[in-house]
Amino acid sequence: MERITATYLVETCHDLEVAANVLAGEQSSGTFVDVPNETEELKKRFSARVESIEHVETVSEPAIPGALSKEGKYHRARIRVSWSIENFGYNLPVLISTLQGNLYEIAQFTGLKLMDIDFPSSFVEHYQGARYGVDGCRALTQVYERPIIGTIMKPSIGMSPEQTAEIVATLAEAGIDFVKDDELMSSAANSKFEDRLAAVMKVINAYADKSGKKVMYAFNISGELDEMQRRYEKIVEAGGTCAMLSINTVGLSATKKICDNRVLAIHAHRNGWGMMNRHPLLGIDFRAYQKIWRLVGVDQLHVNGIQNKFWESDDSVVNSINSLKEPLFNHKNIIPVISSGQWGGQAFETYRRTKTLDVLYMAGGGIMAHPMGPAAGVRGIQQAWKATVDGLTLEEARKEYPEFDKAAGKFGK
Amino acid sequence: MERITATYLVETCHDLEVAANVLAGEQSSGTFVDVPNETEELKKRFSARVESIEHVETVSEPAIPGALSKEGKYHRARIRVSWSIENFGYNLPVLISTLQGNLYEIAQFTGLKLMDIDFPSSFVEHYQGARYGVDGCRALTQVYERPIIGTIMKPSIGMSPEQTAEIVATLAEAGIDFVKDDELMSSAANSKFEDRLAAVMKVINAYADKSGKKVMYAFNISGELDEMQRRYEKIVEAGGTCAMLSINTVGLSATKKICDNRVLAIHAHRNGWGMMNRHPLLGIDFRAYQKIWRLVGVDQLHVNGIQNKFWESDDSVVNSINSLKEPLFNHKNIIPVISSGQWGGQAFETYRRTKTLDVLYMAGGGIMAHPMGPAAGVRGIQQAWKATVDGLTLEEARKEYPEFDKAAGKFGK
Repeated sequence: MERITATYLVETCHDLEVAANVLAGEQSSGTFVDVPNETEELKKRFSARVESIEHVETVSEPAIPGALSKEGKYHRARIRVSWSIENFGYNLPVLISTLQGNLYEIAQFTGLKLMDIDFPSSFVEHYQGARYGVDGCRALTQVYERPIIGTIMKPSIGMSPEQTAEIVATLAEAGIDFVKDDELMSSAANSKFEDRLAAVMKVINAYADKSGKKVMYAFNISGELDEMQRRYEKIVEAGGTCAMLSINTVGLSATKKICDNRVLAIHAHRNGWGMMNRHPLLGIDFRAYQKIWRLVGVDQLHVNGIQNKFWESDDSVVNSINSLKEPLFNHKNIIPVISSGQWGGQAFETYRRTKTLDVLYMAGGGIMAHPMGPAAGVRGIQQAWKATVDGLTLEEARKEYPEFDKAAGKFGK
Repeated sequence: MERITATYLVETCHDLEVAANVLAGEQSSGTFVDVPNETEELKKRFSARVESIEHVETVSEPAIPGALSKEGKYHRARIRVSWSIENFGYNLPVLISTLQGNLYEIAQFTGLKLMDIDFPSSFVEHYQGARYGVDGCRALTQVYERPIIGTIMKPSIGMSPEQTAEIVATLAEAGIDFVKDDELMSSAANSKFEDRLAAVMKVINAYADKSGKKVMYAFNISGELDEMQRRYEKIVEAGGTCAMLSINTVGLSATKKICDNRVLAIHAHRNGWGMMNRHPLLGIDFRAYQKIWRLVGVDQLHVNGIQNKFWESDDSVVNSINSLKEPLFNHKNIIPVISSGQWGGQAFETYRRTKTLDVLYMAGGGIMAHPMGPAAGVRGIQQAWKATVDGLTLEEARKEYPEFDKAAGKFGK
């Protein structure tokens, strides 16, 4: 029978094997005492199994509250635990309750982070993955051999539909490929979703009629399920190509339901991610996280950006981008969405470290606040990516390209 | 205009006022640079506002990775931040993306936990809250003036529908009020949901016909949305009274959709909670968490238990139970679900510290592994609660009640 294997980084003051078996027991047939009916046969079929334990280091202070060591020794290890798919079948919420449920509360651990998940091959028969992915989003935006370049409406909230549409018109003329609502904006008092959709799609459709290029706009439909579905359909009717969901706040089951429509590209915003990942020994690593959301069927997933405005290191961002480049079954690869404090200058380091152009490169303030206006902001970013692929340094690119030079003058360090 | 106020516990090496304003800017109109269109008028209407800053302590080590202090000083404070409801209206996912979104990634903070949310009064017009709550669940189970006593099917996974039904029959005869699937069990290879539902409801209905008392069984319907909805309807058809959801893994929008059916009582399991709460300076406190799920409309919400098998302190559990006793608008109060390592002995301390009988008191192993069998396990717990209300001590109760005495002999410390 096929098994699902999860890799955890754990910390415990107990014997590692004992602690690992507490986890396996808690997350399968066991409870705090032996119970009748928990037969050897039942255990063999349904018990979680500790596959391996790899000691990493021993430290003197616990990472998070839990069982304390008298000797001041806390052992960190990577452990692999497996479950038969007979336990939950093809039910992602129950699978996640098994791999990421009560085990975070086990007193024996003073650190527990889900690092990776290996799904068995039969999952491909039950999950289609992204409807569009990299190739499909390139076809929708007609962008090839360079990153899809996008922006986020800033100010995040407060502009009228008409102001928003006016900026979209300017950006379209400047050659933008993608625009999105901020995650704080869905339907505000002065910018009702339906009004913004109508105003924005009017200018996008007009520009498409004229130029043959349709800008992809990710409208934030995050909300209650029926409203999301209604707004999804309105985007389709209006000729839009993309909907955005805040996947952590909307949640897995509703996101899956929306993805299953398989008409629009789905832009997955990961706001709230810091709560799940910021502590090095608590929560979930992006490597495991992205696999879940690829099964759910999103097309674009946020990964932060090099030299971002947040706390995350460049190494971590590079790992995230690279994890999305790895295949998952025969599914379409999805697009890493690079954003946060981006203005084009980071294109050099991003490309040097990931060697991929299959990204959605997003600049909010970096485009909207360009000294020569948003259109110059778009050109500056296109120039930065062309320069980096051509092998220019940032300084050489500044000499070559006036819009990029102005951006570097304002946003560079 | 009405405002929503969030209270955070934060840690920063920066000036507290500066850091609080970074949070307010990031989570409303601002970005990392000033942008055109962010007018004073727009800011006045849509900007988040720092309402108060209360310094708590200054420590020498950062709680989580982030901006480091040269002087080794990290200031902890409770800060209150408010938003106009014009920003998001009555959209819980967008509200949560605002209160619990990218702010967890702000480098200036080395600790950030959402402690409380104050919703304005107009929310009552948009959210109905629990369909049943305490009074409704008492009416459904016909339990008054004592806790509703329940158990969790253990082993968590692996028993056949027939074995499950057989245990339910024994428990019903013993006077159990409530039984639930373990959160690891929804539809397993040897216990398909539909088969288990049929087998269990057959014995529950038969016992109800005979005795007039219908045991409430919380069937775990967690899964994809359409399947949850189908299974919900099957529970209704079979005469069941309750469905269980793993709310963190199913997610907010799908849980709301299921709650909105308003036919079954909804048992909300919080597995995964440790990831969001275990670190003292990261994530969300139960006080804020329970308010969100009360708006969504669940009837029963897990709070762990006194002297539990997990890491959580008794103080924290007591705070959780007490937070559910506070009113939220004119909504029905919901039931704290007490579980984890419970066997009846904790009834004394639980009652002493919370002075409430409006709880669902759950013992899994504590009933299933009772030395005289599950029926004696149920009686032992009923005895414990009667004894504590009668003012007996645990030792006095042991002398009075043989089943409780046996439980104490096996499970007590």
